[in-house]
Formats: sequence, C-alpha cells, structure tokens
Amino acid sequence: MKWDDLAAQPCSVARTAAVIGDRWTLLILRDCFLGVKRFADFQARLGIARSIVTARLNLLVEEGVLTRQPYQALPARYEYRLTDKGMDLHAIVLAIVAWGDRWQSGPEGPPHWRRHKACGCDFTPMTVCSVCSEVVTARDVEIRENLG
Amino acid sequence: MKWDDLAAQPCSVARTAAVIGDRWTLLILRDCFLGVKRFADFQARLGIARSIVTARLNLLVEEGVLTRQPYQALPARYEYRLTDKGMDLHAIVLAIVAWGDRWQSGPEGPPHWRRHKACGCDFTPMTVCSVCSEVVTARDVEIRENLG
Repeated sequence: MKWDDLAAQPCSVARTAAVIGDRWTLLILRDCFLGVKRFADFQARLGIARSIVTARLNLLVEEGVLTRQPYQALPARYEYRLTDKGMDLHAIVLAIVAWGDRWQSGPEGPPHWRRHKACGCDFTPMTVCSVCSEVVTARDVEIRENLG
Repeated sequence: MKWDDLAAQPCSVARTAAVIGDRWTLLILRDCFLGVKRFADFQARLGIARSIVTARLNLLVEEGVLTRQPYQALPARYEYRLTDKGMDLHAIVLAIVAWGDRWQSGPEGPPHWRRHKACGCDFTPMTVCSVCSEVVTARDVEIRENLG
C-alpha cells in the first residue's frame, strides 16, 4: 500500500499522520507554539536545508494548519501563523512533550518546565474524559466503528 | 544539522520525535493499542514492505517502547507488546485521534467512536492541568528552561 492510499482510509490516526507524521514537521509546530513565524527563523533554529523547511511549511499551509501572510513587499517576505485548526494541535504537542519529559530525560530532569498561568503551578498535562473528567488510560477505552 | 544531532538536543519534542516521528510508526503504535502483536499482522494491516515494518519495530524495541518475545520455536516467531513506556504513548495517540476526528473527518463524522468504560459514555479526550484540573490550551502555558 502507498502512503496516499492509507491516508485516505477511514482512520483518524492515518489522516493526522498524513499532516504531522514527520520529525521536522513536529519541530516546526513546536516552534510555531513558541512564537516563531518567519521562514528564516524556522530555518535557523532547525539548521536544515531550505527545501525541507519549504516543503513542510507548504504542506501545513495546504492542510489549513498555518496561514501565510506577507509582512514585507520588496523583497516579498511571509509570516506563518497557526490557524484555529493549527492551535488545536497543541494537545498533541503537549502530550509529546510530556512523554519526552517522562521517558527521554536524563538524571538532570526535563529540559523545560511548564507553568499553567491560570493556577500558577508547574504542571504535567493529563488526559481526561470529556464527560466524567476522570483520567483516561489505554485500558479504559472501547472502540467501535461509526456505521453512519 | 543532521537529525541525530537534533534529537540529542535538550528538547522533549525532538527526543520524542526521534522515536515516533514517522507515519508508519504512528500506525504501528495505533495497531499495538488495538491489540495487534505479530509481525505478519502488522504487515498485513499496513500492506507495506517487510523491511519497513522490521525497521520500525526494531527501533521501537531498541527504544524500550515494545518488547519482543518468542511465541513459537520452529520457525522462530515473535510477539511485540507495549511496555509501560509504550503504554504511556496512549495520551499522544489519543490526542492524534481526537484532532483527526475533529478536523479531518468528512460530513459522515469520525470513523470510530470511543467509549470511556468507567462512565459508559462516548467521549473526546481533554487535556487538563495536573494541579488544578482545568483545561489547558496553548495560551495558558508559560515555558522556562530547566537550569538545573
């Protein structure tokens, strides 16, 4: 099976992986949430070929995750900003950070701390049920097909 | 910069992306959470080359996300099971599913429904603060470096 066929399957993991299932894309999204907006800044932070950055940004614009807006006319320069669809990727990025903090940090601990502004405390993200607000783990979930 | 250099940087997104930042890996993990354990089943479900499946499974074993255990001697056959570190990826997979359900589904709705066994209701996962239990969005988070 080719990737394009698979991404067209009725599976939300495949459909999402088709947008963000790439290492560089995940790092570009990380930088978007840190406030990076300009091509040159993305490229400088990642230190990779322009063509890789261009391809990833173009896909994210095509998929409606980023918008591309001019901020300078001569020469033409553009800023990339998260759309609502892009902002909604935050839960994925936060879950990725939390796992990395927990399992891939050395004895020096996680590289960054995250503070929840509303309560003022350093926190880790937790995944809960939208109905009963209890924590949800893999063993708590039953899946069934949407038969329409 | 090469990927290996970047993955060594003090960033939990990069460190996690080094393990799961690949489309096929995300689909293999999806299947792990659906109970798939055997090489032939992973390969049949994805319909891709053996070499791709082998490389992804080997990386996940090396990284301690899956264990590889024999279930048959002649010929030797192995099962792949999620470790605790692997089970903990569920929050990421669930966040990926939720985003795909919300943004990549057509008018027919999400391809699957998920029921929270504890409360018996169909649910969507929500990300909350571990301290105050309130919902956390991108705008609620302040990041600072761990200076040791």
